[in-house]
Amino acid sequence: MTRAALNRSRAPVEEPTLETIRVPIADAFEQFQARWDDAFLCDVHLVGAVGAHLHRAFGKRFRPTLVLLAAKAFGAVDEEALLGAVVVELIHTATLIHDDSVDKSLVRRGLPTVNSAWSNDVAILMGDYLYSKAFSILVRARMYGAMDLLAEATHRMSQGELRQIEQRNRIDLTEAQYMRVIEEKTACLIAAGCELGAMAGGGASESQLALGRFGGAVGLAFQITDDLFDYLGAESVMGKAMGSDLEGGKITLPLINSLRNAPERDRRAMVDLIKNREFRNGHWSDVVRFVTEYGGVAYSQARSLELADQAESELKHVPDRDAREALRDAVHYAVTRHR
Amino acid sequence: MTRAALNRSRAPVEEPTLETIRVPIADAFEQFQARWDDAFLCDVHLVGAVGAHLHRAFGKRFRPTLVLLAAKAFGAVDEEALLGAVVVELIHTATLIHDDSVDKSLVRRGLPTVNSAWSNDVAILMGDYLYSKAFSILVRARMYGAMDLLAEATHRMSQGELRQIEQRNRIDLTEAQYMRVIEEKTACLIAAGCELGAMAGGGASESQLALGRFGGAVGLAFQITDDLFDYLGAESVMGKAMGSDLEGGKITLPLINSLRNAPERDRRAMVDLIKNREFRNGHWSDVVRFVTEYGGVAYSQARSLELADQAESELKHVPDRDAREALRDAVHYAVTRHR
Repeated sequence: MTRAALNRSRAPVEEPTLETIRVPIADAFEQFQARWDDAFLCDVHLVGAVGAHLHRAFGKRFRPTLVLLAAKAFGAVDEEALLGAVVVELIHTATLIHDDSVDKSLVRRGLPTVNSAWSNDVAILMGDYLYSKAFSILVRARMYGAMDLLAEATHRMSQGELRQIEQRNRIDLTEAQYMRVIEEKTACLIAAGCELGAMAGGGASESQLALGRFGGAVGLAFQITDDLFDYLGAESVMGKAMGSDLEGGKITLPLINSLRNAPERDRRAMVDLIKNREFRNGHWSDVVRFVTEYGGVAYSQARSLELADQAESELKHVPDRDAREALRDAVHYAVTRHR
Repeated sequence: MTRAALNRSRAPVEEPTLETIRVPIADAFEQFQARWDDAFLCDVHLVGAVGAHLHRAFGKRFRPTLVLLAAKAFGAVDEEALLGAVVVELIHTATLIHDDSVDKSLVRRGLPTVNSAWSNDVAILMGDYLYSKAFSILVRARMYGAMDLLAEATHRMSQGELRQIEQRNRIDLTEAQYMRVIEEKTACLIAAGCELGAMAGGGASESQLALGRFGGAVGLAFQITDDLFDYLGAESVMGKAMGSDLEGGKITLPLINSLRNAPERDRRAMVDLIKNREFRNGHWSDVVRFVTEYGGVAYSQARSLELADQAESELKHVPDRDAREALRDAVHYAVTRHR
């Protein structure tokens, strides 16, 4: 999708919402929700309580939406696609819960995180519960193809998380190093989800791989957009404070790029400001000005649009027209959403 | 194995050590070690560093020993058995690392825990790395039978961990509730490991199930013995302080049984002592006297010996004599070891 294409509105919706994107899979999405709730049926009271809390802190369900659309793209949305959608969201949620515990985040989507509403202990063990529930669902349904994809993706995600810890506060982080982490942390699970959706929908092996590449590109674009929010978002919309990435030592693309572009004097001043953590006391706006003026914001937007183009090009051979359009809208959504 | 049998020494070794138990699988155990180290080959530096630390804090390797012997029991120890042993130990280690983080433990086997040597963040993410590495190894080796067993076992373990949190400081815990938690937390992984060992060794379906029951009984006996150490052990031998279970709110069999047996007045006094956490200031010896005098220690020992008998009875049809003897010794070890 070119920038021009993004600017052309597809009437009547200027920017697609997840609700409109889900129209072709509306029934399947309802069924997904029921199976999601089933994952928290457990005689340990805590599991149900955390499940109910997660239900209130209702996520965007972006990943399951893609899994279901990837199935619809090549055929019917069957039980395998539904369970695949549940499993991908379980793994994603487990990661978020462990991430929040690692980052000591108190709020997500405007509600207390599991570590703050309960404790770090419960966050660690609920994350483990959700990961293992995901794999237990897959073996019970004998979905070994999905298992192959998701075992690898989950392992790569854990490597990405550790790599990110290792790279904390590394102000000299390169774009390639940044891209590698977001590929591991975010893109590989979305890629696996889209690939398994296409597999469940009966897509040929080549189509499965194309949808995998689609998911990978969408995932990168999605994460770059997310990282932009940390500089440009408003807390009321995002449900989290701006600057929290930098606060947590995460060096992301807008900053990496502006540090590369800025004249030496300004670059050094910014490095000092960050090292001395002056962005915490009144100098946050200097950081935002720096990433804007030296092109980091524009570059990140351009990169995410390039990746969106790349994702869209993988949809050429999708036979189902509704699913294809909805997947295109999902790409659009990933790079234009406001939260 | 009856108590009388336990008292009969099998010359020349009074109490079997893991080294003597491993004699029939000595070569395989060497190969296991090499494959274990491979699991930490990763371009994220932290993974290798934590791996080296875990290597120093060398565990007993009780679980992989059982997996390899269970394979030898029915045939040769092949690549599948070796990887099965690695995967079971990876899952066990992941659980220990998350447990130590949950319990805020500072020392394990005389060395700093991952959460104390690094941080809780690293402990959470390294645990995730090891879990996901385990499943990644299984899918790469296309070991789907082992996957079925271990996905279920891992999920049950996570339920047991949450159940244990929910039951913290529940002084009215019943023996049945206690047994359920140790079945989930400890026994089900050992059961799965022995079953997959027998499967890898080419044992018939019935033999696999028998070894699974063997492992389950050994696991329960092992954990009851472990929980006894918390009352009877010496810190210098155990590498952890006595009383740490009670400190962490874990009510275990010696106490449960003595609370059932004690006269009402003494029972109430002990409940008050524990609720007021007086065992922390000079009253720990009162607790030890209580669990000894009211039979909780003797009862726990008897239960673990009963389970040892039960485990041994599952070995009747094991064809390989050396492996059968070594598995018997392993049962003996589980209930007589001093750490």
